[in-house]
Amino acid sequence: MRERKIASNMENGTRTSKWNFKENEKLVSVSGLTVRSVLNKLMSGVDPADTRPVIPLGHGDPSAFPCFRTTPVAEDAISDAVRSAKFNGYSSTVGILPARRAVAEYLSQDLPYKLSPDDVYLTIGCNQAIEVLLNALACPNANILLPTPGFPYYEAWAGFSHLEMRHFNLLPEKEWEVDLNMVESLADENTVAIVIINPGNPCGNVYTDQHLKKVAEMARKLRILVIADEVYAHLTFGSKPFVPMGIFGSISPVITLGSISKRWIVPGWRLGWLVTNDPNGILKEHGVIDSITGYLNISSDPATFIQGAIPQILQKTKDDFFSKIVNILREDADIVYDRIKDIPCITCPSKPEGSMFVMVKLLLDLLEDIEDDLDFCDKLAKEESLIILPGVAVGLKNWLRITFACEPSSLEDGFQRLNAFYQRHAKKQ
Amino acid sequence: MRERKIASNMENGTRTSKWNFKENEKLVSVSGLTVRSVLNKLMSGVDPADTRPVIPLGHGDPSAFPCFRTTPVAEDAISDAVRSAKFNGYSSTVGILPARRAVAEYLSQDLPYKLSPDDVYLTIGCNQAIEVLLNALACPNANILLPTPGFPYYEAWAGFSHLEMRHFNLLPEKEWEVDLNMVESLADENTVAIVIINPGNPCGNVYTDQHLKKVAEMARKLRILVIADEVYAHLTFGSKPFVPMGIFGSISPVITLGSISKRWIVPGWRLGWLVTNDPNGILKEHGVIDSITGYLNISSDPATFIQGAIPQILQKTKDDFFSKIVNILREDADIVYDRIKDIPCITCPSKPEGSMFVMVKLLLDLLEDIEDDLDFCDKLAKEESLIILPGVAVGLKNWLRITFACEPSSLEDGFQRLNAFYQRHAKKQ
Repeated sequence: MRERKIASNMENGTRTSKWNFKENEKLVSVSGLTVRSVLNKLMSGVDPADTRPVIPLGHGDPSAFPCFRTTPVAEDAISDAVRSAKFNGYSSTVGILPARRAVAEYLSQDLPYKLSPDDVYLTIGCNQAIEVLLNALACPNANILLPTPGFPYYEAWAGFSHLEMRHFNLLPEKEWEVDLNMVESLADENTVAIVIINPGNPCGNVYTDQHLKKVAEMARKLRILVIADEVYAHLTFGSKPFVPMGIFGSISPVITLGSISKRWIVPGWRLGWLVTNDPNGILKEHGVIDSITGYLNISSDPATFIQGAIPQILQKTKDDFFSKIVNILREDADIVYDRIKDIPCITCPSKPEGSMFVMVKLLLDLLEDIEDDLDFCDKLAKEESLIILPGVAVGLKNWLRITFACEPSSLEDGFQRLNAFYQRHAKKQ
Repeated sequence: MRERKIASNMENGTRTSKWNFKENEKLVSVSGLTVRSVLNKLMSGVDPADTRPVIPLGHGDPSAFPCFRTTPVAEDAISDAVRSAKFNGYSSTVGILPARRAVAEYLSQDLPYKLSPDDVYLTIGCNQAIEVLLNALACPNANILLPTPGFPYYEAWAGFSHLEMRHFNLLPEKEWEVDLNMVESLADENTVAIVIINPGNPCGNVYTDQHLKKVAEMARKLRILVIADEVYAHLTFGSKPFVPMGIFGSISPVITLGSISKRWIVPGWRLGWLVTNDPNGILKEHGVIDSITGYLNISSDPATFIQGAIPQILQKTKDDFFSKIVNILREDADIVYDRIKDIPCITCPSKPEGSMFVMVKLLLDLLEDIEDDLDFCDKLAKEESLIILPGVAVGLKNWLRITFACEPSSLEDGFQRLNAFYQRHAKKQ
C-alpha cells in the first residue's frame, strides 16, 4: 500500500513511492484566519506596474512612517541592555524579575491597588499572551465568548487548541458596546471566559467605566474570567479616557493583556505581558495560574535583553512622546471621519476615539460590480495599491476595517484613491 | 450544582461559589518534562546559608561566564539594527528576507549545494523550531522516533500536540550511535520522522558522515523525514569534524534546526532557524511546508531587529572568536574527563567531542544513602550548591548529564565539590 508509484517521477529515486508525512489540515485551515494571512493575499494582488507607493491601511503597524518613529529612550535602552552583556542568557519562564517589577509598577499607576511582579508574565508581544491564555483555558468541553467583530487571532488559537467559540455582538448603534443580553444567553457552565478589547480593535471605540463594570458584573454572575485585551491602552483621543478593566478585578477575576508594541510603536520588538488582576486569588485557587506557567514552560520567551531594557523604557519615556503620537492619531481620526462622509458607499456608525482603526459599513447597492467586502478589497488593492482589511476577516461581512495610523498626508492620498475607486465602480443611475 | 459553597471563604463574596475555569491537567503534566522545570526544582533546594556560589553544571547556557562573552560584532549588529529604525515593525511569517538569505548562505558553506532563502524559516531560537515542526507533523495517528537519551523538549511538545512518541536507543558502547535495528523495528506506516541531535545533547558525541548516511538511508527505507537538530553545530573539539545532515538531503528529506544561541553564546537572543534540505521538493509535495507556514502564521516571530542584525552577525564574526570558544570547551572537556576518573561512583563511556555535555553512569552500589539519580542531584544541590541534571530528565535513569561549558576554574571547583560529596556518601567497606 505504501509503495504507490508516482509515474511521472519514476526517474527520481526519492519520489517513486509515497512518503509517510502529509499536510496537517487543521493547522492549514486555522492559519488562514489571521489578519496577516488575509493581508498577504491582498498584497500579492497589487499591480507591480503601479508606480505609486502602496498605502497600507490594513494592519496596526505604523512603525514605517517617520512621524511614528519610536522614542530614542527605547532605542537607547535596547542598546544599553545588549552592551551590558547581562542579558545574553536564558530568561526564566515567566520573565526576568526587574522587567516584571517594572510592568507591575507601570500598570499599577492606573489601578486602585498595587500589582506585584508575581502578577506579571512576560510574553512575546500581546499575541503570545493570547496564545498562552487560550491554551491554558482549553480544557475538554470548555467554551469562550468572543466579540463580533473581533481580532481573529483569538479564533485561530481557539480553533487550534479545541476551545469552543461562542460569539456575542458588539452593537454599532451603541458605540460598539457589548450586547450583554446575548452574552448571558450564550454562556453555560462550561464557559470559562469572555474577551473584551478596549480600546477597540477593530472598532476604534473606547468603553466607559460604567460599561466595563457591567461586563465585570456579568462575568461574576456567569462565574467566568474577563480577558481584557488592552494592547491599545492609552491610545485614546476622544472624549472618553482609557479605563483599565483591572480596576474591577475584585468583582470578577481579570487577566489583562498588553505590550509595548502600540504605545511605543515597536510591534516588531515582541514584548508583551499577561497580568492577573485578581486580588481575591481566584485564578490561583482554580488552577489557572498553574496552567499559564505550564504553557510558558514549554513555549519560547521574549529575548532576554529586550526584557532587560523594559525598566528603562517604561520609566524614562517622557509624556511628550506619548502626546505626540496621540495627537497624530487624533488628526488622523479627524481626517478619516471627514473623508468617509465624502464617499457615499461607506458609512461610519461612530467616530473612532481610540486604537488605530475604524469600522465602516459597505453599501453594496451603490456599487455596480462589487460582490462583497473581499471583492471590494481585492479590486482596491489591484487598482489603487491601497490595502484595507475586509470586514469578513474580523467577523463582519460587508464591512471594512480601515487603519488610520499613518502619515496624515498618506491618509489623504489613500482616501483620494478610495474615492476614485468608488467613482469608477459606482452604480450609474 | 454550580453554586457549591466553599465554607471557609464565606466572608468573601467572590469566593462563595465555584468558578467555571479550572486547571488544564494535560498542560501542567507535560510542562514538568522540560529541563528547566527540573533545574528550577534543584535550584530551589540550594541551601541559602551556603556562602559559596552556585556552580551551574545543569544547563547549556555558559553566557554568564566572562570567558564565554559573545563577540562585540554581535552586540554592534544589534545596536546598529535597533538604531536604524528599519526593523521596528512586524516581521513576515517566515522571517525577513535579508536574514533568511544570510542564514541560507551561512549554512550553504558546508553543503554540496546552495540553499535558497525560501528553504529558511526563522524561529524564536531552536526551541520554537522544535515546537513548529512537531505541531506541523502532528496529524492524527502520526508517530515520531525520538532518541534515548534525548532532549526532553521534544517529548513535551509531542505530548502536548498528540504526536505519539516511540523511543530508540543511542548506544553508549558505540559512541552513542543510533541503534538502527531498533529504529527499523519501531517504525510503521504512521511514522513521520526521526530526530537526530548532532553534536549530541546530552551525550557530547559527534557522528561520522558514514553513520549519518546510514541514518538517511534508513529514513528513506522507512519513508520518513530526518529532523537534524544541529543547535550545537561547529562546537566540536575532538577527532571528528561536524558534518551537517543536510548533505544527505537527496537521500531522504532533512529538516535542519539551528540557532545562534550556542555558537555565539547568546541563548537569550532567541534567534533560530528551521531549514529544509530537500533538493527533490518532497516536503512541499507532501504538504509539510504548508503545515510549517501554517503554524508560523499563528505563532510569534523573533524580534524583527534581531533578524535585522543576522546578516552582520553571520558574515562579520571572525574565526578567532569561534576558535577561542572551541578551545575553552576542549580544555573543559579534558578537565571533566580527567576528574570523572577520580570519582569512583561515576563512569563515562566515551570522552565528549562536541556540544557542552557529557553523560556519566552512576554506580549506586558504591553509595550508601542515595536512592537514584534524582536523589543524588537533589542532595548535591542542597549540600554542595552544585547543579547537575539527573539522567531521568533526559530519559536515562541513574545517569547524570554534566554540562562542562563554564570557566575552567569553576569546573575544577565543581568537581572538587562532587568528589567531596562522593566521599561523604561512599559506602563504607
